[in-house]
Amino acid sequence: MSLTPEQTAEIAAARAETRPTLRATSPGMEAQLYVAHQVLDHGIVRVVDYMGDDAAITQAARVSYGRGTKAVQNDEGLIRYLMRHWHSSPFEMCEVKLHVKLPVFVARQWIRHRTANVNEYSARYSILDREFYIPAPEQLAAQSKVNNQGRGAALEGAEAARVLDILRDDAMRSYDHYEAMLSQEGQQGLARELARMNLPANIYTQWYWKVDLHNLFHFLRLRADPHAQYEIRTYADVIATLVRDWVPIAYAAFADYRMGAVTISAKGVDLLKRRLAGADVTQENSGMSKGEWREFADIWGDGA
Amino acid sequence: MSLTPEQTAEIAAARAETRPTLRATSPGMEAQLYVAHQVLDHGIVRVVDYMGDDAAITQAARVSYGRGTKAVQNDEGLIRYLMRHWHSSPFEMCEVKLHVKLPVFVARQWIRHRTANVNEYSARYSILDREFYIPAPEQLAAQSKVNNQGRGAALEGAEAARVLDILRDDAMRSYDHYEAMLSQEGQQGLARELARMNLPANIYTQWYWKVDLHNLFHFLRLRADPHAQYEIRTYADVIATLVRDWVPIAYAAFADYRMGAVTISAKGVDLLKRRLAGADVTQENSGMSKGEWREFADIWGDGA
Amino acid sequence: MSLTPEQTAEIAAARAETRPTLRATSPGMEAQLYVAHQVLDHGIVRVVDYMGDDAAITQAARVSYGRGTKAVQNDEGLIRYLMRHWHSSPFEMCEVKLHVKLPVFVARQWIRHRTANVNEYSARYSILDREFYIPAPEQLAAQSKVNNQGRGAALEGAEAARVLDILRDDAMRSYDHYEAMLSQEGQQGLARELARMNLPANIYTQWYWKVDLHNLFHFLRLRADPHAQYEIRTYADVIATLVRDWVPIAYAAFADYRMGAVTISAKGVDLLKRRLAGADVTQENSGMSKGEWREFADIWGDGA
Amino acid sequence: MSLTPEQTAEIAAARAETRPTLRATSPGMEAQLYVAHQVLDHGIVRVVDYMGDDAAITQAARVSYGRGTKAVQNDEGLIRYLMRHWHSSPFEMCEVKLHVKLPVFVARQWIRHRTANVNEYSARYSILDREFYIPAPEQLAAQSKVNNQGRGAALEGAEAARVLDILRDDAMRSYDHYEAMLSQEGQQGLARELARMNLPANIYTQWYWKVDLHNLFHFLRLRADPHAQYEIRTYADVIATLVRDWVPIAYAAFADYRMGAVTISAKGVDLLKRRLAGADVTQENSGMSKGEWREFADIWGDGA
Repeated sequence: MSLTPEQTAEIAAARAETRPTLRATSPGMEAQLYVAHQVLDHGIVRVVDYMGDDAAITQAARVSYGRGTKAVQNDEGLIRYLMRHWHSSPFEMCEVKLHVKLPVFVARQWIRHRTANVNEYSARYSILDREFYIPAPEQLAAQSKVNNQGRGAALEGAEAARVLDILRDDAMRSYDHYEAMLSQEGQQGLARELARMNLPANIYTQWYWKVDLHNLFHFLRLRADPHAQYEIRTYADVIATLVRDWVPIAYAAFADYRMGAVTISAKGVDLLKRRLAGADVTQENSGMSKGEWREFADIWGDGA
Repeated sequence: MSLTPEQTAEIAAARAETRPTLRATSPGMEAQLYVAHQVLDHGIVRVVDYMGDDAAITQAARVSYGRGTKAVQNDEGLIRYLMRHWHSSPFEMCEVKLHVKLPVFVARQWIRHRTANVNEYSARYSILDREFYIPAPEQLAAQSKVNNQGRGAALEGAEAARVLDILRDDAMRSYDHYEAMLSQEGQQGLARELARMNLPANIYTQWYWKVDLHNLFHFLRLRADPHAQYEIRTYADVIATLVRDWVPIAYAAFADYRMGAVTISAKGVDLLKRRLAGADVTQENSGMSKGEWREFADIWGDGA
Repeated sequence: MSLTPEQTAEIAAARAETRPTLRATSPGMEAQLYVAHQVLDHGIVRVVDYMGDDAAITQAARVSYGRGTKAVQNDEGLIRYLMRHWHSSPFEMCEVKLHVKLPVFVARQWIRHRTANVNEYSARYSILDREFYIPAPEQLAAQSKVNNQGRGAALEGAEAARVLDILRDDAMRSYDHYEAMLSQEGQQGLARELARMNLPANIYTQWYWKVDLHNLFHFLRLRADPHAQYEIRTYADVIATLVRDWVPIAYAAFADYRMGAVTISAKGVDLLKRRLAGADVTQENSGMSKGEWREFADIWGDGA
Repeated sequence: MSLTPEQTAEIAAARAETRPTLRATSPGMEAQLYVAHQVLDHGIVRVVDYMGDDAAITQAARVSYGRGTKAVQNDEGLIRYLMRHWHSSPFEMCEVKLHVKLPVFVARQWIRHRTANVNEYSARYSILDREFYIPAPEQLAAQSKVNNQGRGAALEGAEAARVLDILRDDAMRSYDHYEAMLSQEGQQGLARELARMNLPANIYTQWYWKVDLHNLFHFLRLRADPHAQYEIRTYADVIATLVRDWVPIAYAAFADYRMGAVTISAKGVDLLKRRLAGADVTQENSGMSKGEWREFADIWGDGA
């Protein structure tokens, strides 16, 4: 991990100071507050603040005066109903704020999720640290042959070594040059907002990211998915465990109705019904394109 | 106020139960939590949850690991700087959730602020209460003669009495008919989602409304303003006092740089500079339209 | 329909004036421009402007310099791929602006879709017309026995007649009183922003509503759905036909992958796989709640 | 400029093909459609599509059936009124789609404006071109001494030459290595989604960016401002000229009430009034902080 002793001390100090509150609290999230979870080689995810718990979802759905039913079972049934029927607004009533340290190329994917608040460390104002993401050997994947936007098997031997050398050397050289351009020893020193342009996309940046639970679920559905790039997926996977600790009932509904769920097209519904009725359905008689059929058969079998 | 004994008891119960938390707390907001503030004749505003405090704004702006500087003075300087220079994202790091009871015609103005989360009491699912907004006599204003979108002096005597009679009678009759159409005694009973269409726009509805501090400030700037309709302004005024208790430093900056501030057009800047240099500036030589000049002269005098 | 002769003339004039443009045009949408489609008894939907066509979706997805491939087939394959894999941003590249006249209670549901731009006729500034939605007899439905938020069979006989009488009489009386309060004959006249509070939720309002294609599809998925209230569904159904004329390829993909599609929970996927393998799956051994099973069996049969 | 002959031909072809439309057209914008404007050394801005014109703003504000008043003067008065009074929704009724080629570090600032639609060229899917932003000598600025987030004077002599050498060499080397890692000659070839991490932030990317006029004005106010980094400001300046051609009346109102306008705090209003009344106002008796006073005095003079 990449915490300095000062940072570790700040986190310990933050976890040592308990205050009384009248607000809803989530015991699972209190246990997570401020704790730094390592991601990739130098990345971090940690919860900095949160609002609401499972009961806050049903309380908002009912627009109630108090904390609502004491019966957790009723809350669970309602939460599962809301998730199943795409009622999104009650889930927007919970909010979480994360502190994330991540490579710039991951940040560029992440920021595409617009319904969130973000404060990023400013490389116009401050100097970035010498920290770069270098993939672990097993993640040094070849270009996929079948998917223009994916990875194949891991590189091997000399090729892998050569790639790692390039990534490490270029990162160090670009950072050396970044420092050399900024330096004010015996020269004026280039503006920070310009010098940063020399830094590659695997340098680490960090930000505070705040999002409501509905939009966080949407983020997880897209980014904790096998189609997402491995690097952002590792962040999503860690965040998923934090959400599970925070709102266990809502997370379970999400896992069942979104993450583990499958959407079948009108054509696919028809095919499945025919199959359930005993018909022999293959790509030839499916009316589906090859790509569509491959995705269908991956789940339901190819009927052979 | 319009709380039932059960609601009063629920609020008291919520305020009686303190829990320990590691999160930032705002003492001023803890004192406000759950308390129902009366607005208009049957309206309510109360804080149901909040996230963050003044320090959370600077903590996010600095993307720091801990709670940041202990020196409140540094925080204040930074917060004022951020507000002055329209840095909105640090203010988005605080969030508040309100429970509001309000007339439908006020709700229709309020919902125009889109960057917020809302769960409204459903009149498809439930039956609305017999509660209507009837203006206080001093708010029973005549149509403005100068502003198509504003109020003039209060109505007087028989005209005022007649208006109040109409509003009260029509409200009661429409609600009687609402109940009569819904009734399942000796008849099927009309669907709730249809029966509600008979209810006038002064009936009260209620919702949970969640918003970040930046967007709440924007709401207050537009709605706690003399140009806003009186009824929504009374809600904004109450919310402003809650925000002041919650984040006193940010609120003071907002009061100075937004609420009490004035935006002067390029033309107006030129006029003021000429005046400061001793020139006699009047509408005739100002290049402003009459409406523009009136607004300018309201603040800076007409030069006469 | 409720167009005045002046409005009809304005629409005819707008449709008579053709201008040359270098922009992408959609022949199907040009045929629809400005034409008023009747909805309910006095409602209207009409296209006022649009941006983009099917090719604009793929052009944006490819970030190309020109109009892209001439081969419509390639465009279709890409559009279907984008829809199937939840790539939403290319669909955001098309935009449409509608003029809609609708009852206030429908407007209140509609406005919940926040990612859109809206300008509503102002009842603070102007006087509303005497137009109210009175349901057709076959839409005068009883409250559903099984669904708190739905309709049952149509009311019959005396009960239906009584409801229609109430709705008509209360609408007329409330409007008479609205006019009486506004009147400046022999009195001051109540402010418009206050007088409107006496009007019921079935009065018609109107607005300009502008939305991108991705968010419009989301609107249609939720509002052209059997669970949506009939009144808003009729608007969604009309808009769906306009979208079909505008971007036929994207609309077909939407119909297949969204409107006609089914999302199956992780549990449901498991059940279906067991069934395909010949197992006897019933509610008892499904692990589903009654509500969940009912929804599952509605599509896939109850296994009996 | 960096257009290939193919791209130039595609643009010429797009400009050659006129179609009839019933929609509102803007002559100034038709003249701009598809034309590539050079920005920085390899950057481009061009209009790909647009919706609406000046009249569309007032038409939406009036929720009218036709194109509204023929009197341009009425439109101008209304547009200026709307701008002056912060009525934002009518300006949201116009929309524009731009194709922009820009360095990655500029793209990272730009994307912070969330209320827009964007499709970026995918470096997961495709291979980026060998094009990097190298500042012109006069833009090679030193770090500002007074502003942590700004530039001072241009670097000179050997220092400037050294910086340019570094930027050019590192860009070329990183791109050589990018190609070497991707190459499938005699090796597997690294996945594109990984290889891109070696590329520095001055490489060019491109995107389609679609935004409504209100949010575009907000973008211009922040980015065509002297506090914005020079590189993004050059893009904003070009876009401003396109907007001026598109909606000349709205742009003039924006220039007067936003770009050239000044917001004065409550404290500042008080100071100006005292000065207009003849008082001697200096920092000492102003109650302002040094920073605040400096900004105030920059506009209104320091009273000395």
